Amino acid sequence: MTATAAVLEDLRGRLPAGALATDRDLLAGFEVDITGRYRGIASALARPRTREEVATVLAACAAAGLPLVPQGGNTGLVGGGVPRDGELVLSLTGLDWVGEVEPATMQLSVGAGATLERAQEAACRAGLELPIDHGARGAATIGGSIATDAGGSLAVGHGTMRQRVAGLEAVLADGAAVCRMGGLLKDNAGYDLPSLLVGSEGTLGVITAARLQLEPGRPRRLAALFGLPGMEVALALLARLHQVAGLETADFFDPACMELVCARQGLEDPLGGGHGVYVLAQFAGEADVTEALAAALESLPAEPAVAIADGLAERERLWAYREPLNESIRELGVAHKMDVAVPVEALPEFERRVRELAAGVSGSSLYLFGHLGDGNVHVNLLGPAPDDEAADEAVLRLAASLGGTISAEHGVGIAKTRFLSLCRSEGEIAAMRALKTSLDPAGVLAPGRVLAAA
Amino acid sequence: MTATAAVLEDLRGRLPAGALATDRDLLAGFEVDITGRYRGIASALARPRTREEVATVLAACAAAGLPLVPQGGNTGLVGGGVPRDGELVLSLTGLDWVGEVEPATMQLSVGAGATLERAQEAACRAGLELPIDHGARGAATIGGSIATDAGGSLAVGHGTMRQRVAGLEAVLADGAAVCRMGGLLKDNAGYDLPSLLVGSEGTLGVITAARLQLEPGRPRRLAALFGLPGMEVALALLARLHQVAGLETADFFDPACMELVCARQGLEDPLGGGHGVYVLAQFAGEADVTEALAAALESLPAEPAVAIADGLAERERLWAYREPLNESIRELGVAHKMDVAVPVEALPEFERRVRELAAGVSGSSLYLFGHLGDGNVHVNLLGPAPDDEAADEAVLRLAASLGGTISAEHGVGIAKTRFLSLCRSEGEIAAMRALKTSLDPAGVLAPGRVLAAA
Repeated sequence: MTATAAVLEDLRGRLPAGALATDRDLLAGFEVDITGRYRGIASALARPRTREEVATVLAACAAAGLPLVPQGGNTGLVGGGVPRDGELVLSLTGLDWVGEVEPATMQLSVGAGATLERAQEAACRAGLELPIDHGARGAATIGGSIATDAGGSLAVGHGTMRQRVAGLEAVLADGAAVCRMGGLLKDNAGYDLPSLLVGSEGTLGVITAARLQLEPGRPRRLAALFGLPGMEVALALLARLHQVAGLETADFFDPACMELVCARQGLEDPLGGGHGVYVLAQFAGEADVTEALAAALESLPAEPAVAIADGLAERERLWAYREPLNESIRELGVAHKMDVAVPVEALPEFERRVRELAAGVSGSSLYLFGHLGDGNVHVNLLGPAPDDEAADEAVLRLAASLGGTISAEHGVGIAKTRFLSLCRSEGEIAAMRALKTSLDPAGVLAPGRVLAAA
Repeated sequence: MTATAAVLEDLRGRLPAGALATDRDLLAGFEVDITGRYRGIASALARPRTREEVATVLAACAAAGLPLVPQGGNTGLVGGGVPRDGELVLSLTGLDWVGEVEPATMQLSVGAGATLERAQEAACRAGLELPIDHGARGAATIGGSIATDAGGSLAVGHGTMRQRVAGLEAVLADGAAVCRMGGLLKDNAGYDLPSLLVGSEGTLGVITAARLQLEPGRPRRLAALFGLPGMEVALALLARLHQVAGLETADFFDPACMELVCARQGLEDPLGGGHGVYVLAQFAGEADVTEALAAALESLPAEPAVAIADGLAERERLWAYREPLNESIRELGVAHKMDVAVPVEALPEFERRVRELAAGVSGSSLYLFGHLGDGNVHVNLLGPAPDDEAADEAVLRLAASLGGTISAEHGVGIAKTRFLSLCRSEGEIAAMRALKTSLDPAGVLAPGRVLAAA
């Protein structure tokens, strides 16, 4: 029996029946990511259902030096949750409880394995909203969303997942628990371990539950799709949109995206085509903002083509051009996905120079979409071989050179560790390494993610 | 020349003239805190004016093993910013620049040494608001407010200082800089060092600047002072107040506070006296909420005495009963100040048991006030000798036993290190110690604060 086999055997005896699996067919579903770009071999799959079982797994792995990778809904795009080199996959999907909404605080406690969609639905049933959303809501877990500080289409109005975390429960590498689920609005007794865990991608601890800050339900919503000549005008539009109350989405996509979605979904461009960029905006609140929006648009330098949607069904018809973008691109092949953000005012220059870069990659095709209000661009490049990262590096370098970040909302994972120094100083990375070593001295928690193996 | 003298001499040569002082008369003002309870001897005072000068001081201290304590406006209440045992005082008040408000993002960049009041004023000049406020606004610095995650009277509506931090600049113990001043809404490239620094009380790094998230200016404000029979009814009132749009303050104080302020300030109880507890609420927004408030009060079990104030001058007349509380208590002597929070529903039991505790301390007097909406109670006990912490411990233990925290908004400082284990587990404290050691291996940054010397 190998050393790993001995650890697994020991662990099997300490977990409920079925919580530790080594069946290769079963493991296969956990060994490849949604993009098809990242895959690896797992030594085993642990599926705990309680925090105590998570602690058992972590303590055993730390003691034996067996590396593990936490995995939520496996919807990540940077290889962060896929096993490598015989790591144990710690799936958190079994911790899928959803609590009751507490009306006084508008907070909802859920297990890390509950999906974003189920948490949204629980909020909705209480007349409230969980204002975090993206296309993978049906599979992405709350734990994974916190571990990657997920953003999405509502961040311009409501911030990222970090702003939703009113409480957190987690297990550290040595099996110790971090418990801050009391929902205290003010609690400054020592370092805020929950804040450090948000966005740490499972490398500093494993999130097992969260208390989410909800917001009041908005009775009215209005969506608008704009067709504009280019990114400069889109920024002028954005400034006007900010003047209208309740802006919660200001996404954009390019004509290649519109054509792709129309072709794949059997749709027609509702704005008749011929535009340089599309902007999808949404407003939510108590009042009808139709007139305020019209007034805001009056002062625009160029009159945009616009389709406005009020009711739910109409709004969904507009979102149907935005929502399937990731999936439609995935059907074309394995795309190089660069999730960057730049200061909003740098978006026109960023777009221009990315197009120049892509034009230099023969046979490539480029799809740009993202979140205008955040300066967050999803660069999707098809063409280069999966391991040819020359264009990836050029795009990340460009974003950093414009004062941006190489990772806006997808995380670093394994995809971007070697590029971290493009937007973080040597001193900052040294500090991150020191933090990692301090909390995970054996280096068993998702090694090689966020920070390259030393 | 002693070793310390040699370091100081070296440092003097590397800083601008006057930036390093050892004059004892000058130092005296930095060696005692506002409560008079904490004092110590400093070896020197460093007053840098730039981040680079801060880095010079830190690197020199780390290299020589000379401990230092960062100090902002010296308005802390837990001894966190007062030197001990010949520490160097690193005053940040020289980094007092205030930038321009960026209208597109509603963000304001300021130096760590700018006062809260100056940052509020800059926001106001741009038609915006910085919704963090407390009585020490004229002296408390932004850096200190972030280092302690200051809360105050607006937290129930707008969160604590943590929610205001859209960007941060800091220097770590080794002199390395953390720079996240770009204001990117989404930026997940590695661990969020700024989040870890918020609330770390100068023990993990020295904050040198911040980018603050402002909010739109509220054209209308309404304040209301309620007199109620007791804390149970106050909680029923709180639930009604939450139903009115724009609740930003729900503070409370007890009859002893009312009597003290009236006596000290030459005021009269505007509600005629005879109440068990007072609640000061404030609403801010676009619309007049007078009617909504009246409707919400209708369903209360007992009719409260109430004074309502609309205009600024009227509102200030109501705040005049709340605002001078800390100062009025200070004039009575050196109070034991316990800044705790409990889950809101536990407030009645907490109050009852604190009164029992105080009644058992012969010759003591008790003043309770705080933030009803946060469950944050400031327990002020006069009577016991400064070093008699028996009552302090009992109160902190009580708060923790009710699911609360021993430190809501003042921080741990040196006052509460030995009580940290009342609300943090051994594993959590071990993790905090590991983090501290990893970022400050020489242990020069505010040693003995937050975590007791090992």
